[in-house]
Amino acid sequence: MPNTNRQLRLQNRPKGLLAPGDLQLVESPVPELKDGQALAKVKYLSIDPTMRAWMVADTYLPAVPIGEVMRSLGFAEIVESRHAEYKKGDRITGLTGLQDYVVLDGSGKGLFQRVPKIPFVSDTVFLGVLGVTGLTAFFGMEIAAPKKGETLVVSAAAGATGSIAGQIGKIHGCRVVGIAGTDDKCSWMTKDLGFDAAINYKHPDWKEKLTAATPNGIDIDFENVGGEIMREILNRMNLHGCVVLCGLISGYTKGDPGLASFGTVLVKRLRVQGFIILDYASRFMEAATQLGQWKMFGKLKDRETIMEGLEKAPDAINMLFTGGNTGKLIVKL
Amino acid sequence: MPNTNRQLRLQNRPKGLLAPGDLQLVESPVPELKDGQALAKVKYLSIDPTMRAWMVADTYLPAVPIGEVMRSLGFAEIVESRHAEYKKGDRITGLTGLQDYVVLDGSGKGLFQRVPKIPFVSDTVFLGVLGVTGLTAFFGMEIAAPKKGETLVVSAAAGATGSIAGQIGKIHGCRVVGIAGTDDKCSWMTKDLGFDAAINYKHPDWKEKLTAATPNGIDIDFENVGGEIMREILNRMNLHGCVVLCGLISGYTKGDPGLASFGTVLVKRLRVQGFIILDYASRFMEAATQLGQWKMFGKLKDRETIMEGLEKAPDAINMLFTGGNTGKLIVKL
Repeated sequence: MPNTNRQLRLQNRPKGLLAPGDLQLVESPVPELKDGQALAKVKYLSIDPTMRAWMVADTYLPAVPIGEVMRSLGFAEIVESRHAEYKKGDRITGLTGLQDYVVLDGSGKGLFQRVPKIPFVSDTVFLGVLGVTGLTAFFGMEIAAPKKGETLVVSAAAGATGSIAGQIGKIHGCRVVGIAGTDDKCSWMTKDLGFDAAINYKHPDWKEKLTAATPNGIDIDFENVGGEIMREILNRMNLHGCVVLCGLISGYTKGDPGLASFGTVLVKRLRVQGFIILDYASRFMEAATQLGQWKMFGKLKDRETIMEGLEKAPDAINMLFTGGNTGKLIVKL
Repeated sequence: MPNTNRQLRLQNRPKGLLAPGDLQLVESPVPELKDGQALAKVKYLSIDPTMRAWMVADTYLPAVPIGEVMRSLGFAEIVESRHAEYKKGDRITGLTGLQDYVVLDGSGKGLFQRVPKIPFVSDTVFLGVLGVTGLTAFFGMEIAAPKKGETLVVSAAAGATGSIAGQIGKIHGCRVVGIAGTDDKCSWMTKDLGFDAAINYKHPDWKEKLTAATPNGIDIDFENVGGEIMREILNRMNLHGCVVLCGLISGYTKGDPGLASFGTVLVKRLRVQGFIILDYASRFMEAATQLGQWKMFGKLKDRETIMEGLEKAPDAINMLFTGGNTGKLIVKL
């Protein structure tokens, strides 16, 4: 049996990119197994953007405590077992952490899942297409509910999640446009993945290219990046479009206050719905009837701030922004 | 018949609050009626935050052109008619503009609607509870789909829309907390409107008060303000909560870049859905089966960037943010 377990432990919460020593390589003994435990040798580690967030802040999972093994997903194989449900040779994925060996105790902790050996399929597929990034693309596209002919734009589209999300868009008959940071990635998307267009955001004319590539606007934004790229996509969105907020990678290594609120939307899985009353014009009567009834029965009270004279209208408009009115603000002519 | 029509015309696009002269009072002749037209005397003007946006930019309606009568809603009475569907004495609401008289031609332009004379009900109710602000509260709360016992927070809650939205929340059995800028407004909300709590955001300890007033977190944000108030509300939101993005008044008179993207979400009526893959854990098998099938049939292609050795993991994490990888990034141990 092995007796040394190399681990990368979190020593500092990085600012910007990771600096040497933020993760420290430590050798520790492989733990002695107790009854109900199994030992797995980590074969592959999944490296995902969310790890950067785990290093610095409580998000949807608590921040990794300083001094502990850095959290990560991985693929591992059971090498020794005193647990009834695991036997030597079993293959698993889950939160192995950045280390050579991980102990499983059969609890939900670590989200370990047994994975099959499939002929002609590499082990790493369980970290990619069939792993968390593939699943993220799948459920994100389920939220988007794409319809045939709609235009889907994916940012960080050559990444593990984006590349699958875009292809799922193609399966659903969407026009798919990917955004990435090198020409190589772009040609991979259009030549191999079947995307309709791919845009290198490092080219100075990328915004014009995005416009040209989305002649009918954008119906779905599978958003992985945030910041300037997201702003540009939002500007091309069609009315009543959908933004699947999957990641905001542009902000993870720098504090972008403009992204902070979207970060909260993401982490708390909020639904933000913009709306404009004009869209409901055909139902005004129905609503007014209900409102009138509520008002008649004293369930709705109102107050008015009334100013007199057309010439007071400019002051009245300003009053809205200085907090002068309570309730409905009206100018009487 | 009257022969002078006073109008407030847009002369400059305001920066910040309106300055004198941004809207200029002009006297023009009351137009000669043609067949198919009716003349209405404006009795009441509705003063709404959205007018500030109409002054400066194309939003969900085009910006008001310089030199034209400022767009606004109003209540008016027909004083002369050569239109078959309007007769003298008819009462209407719609986009009258800031002026004494408006000509109707029976087209959809101006969104004019006939309103009844109801005993004991003031005319202005058709600009308030039964007008566009009341309707906005109604349909916004429909989007929120409140459930009994949920906590609803309304910003600009003493305003025409917010005060109705909060009361609709009470009708649906929500705990309702309003945010406004004076103690008077706050006491109106709690004493007259039945809100459970009201918070004056101008008090230095308003954030603590918001926390205290929302012991079970916040399920619904009826958002009228944006900026710091919205950020604070988002921080108190419960997972899977809903933000009805109705207005961002804090940004209308100053360019807040952090608000720009939310402004686009609002104007384009986008749905933004944050999500985290962990919520779908119970459906991973179902999704993996579908993904596996797609992969088997060549509908999903993947690429991997594989680095070797645990000690490479920190560099690998940075690679995600510098664009070094294509497809799934994996460290092989």
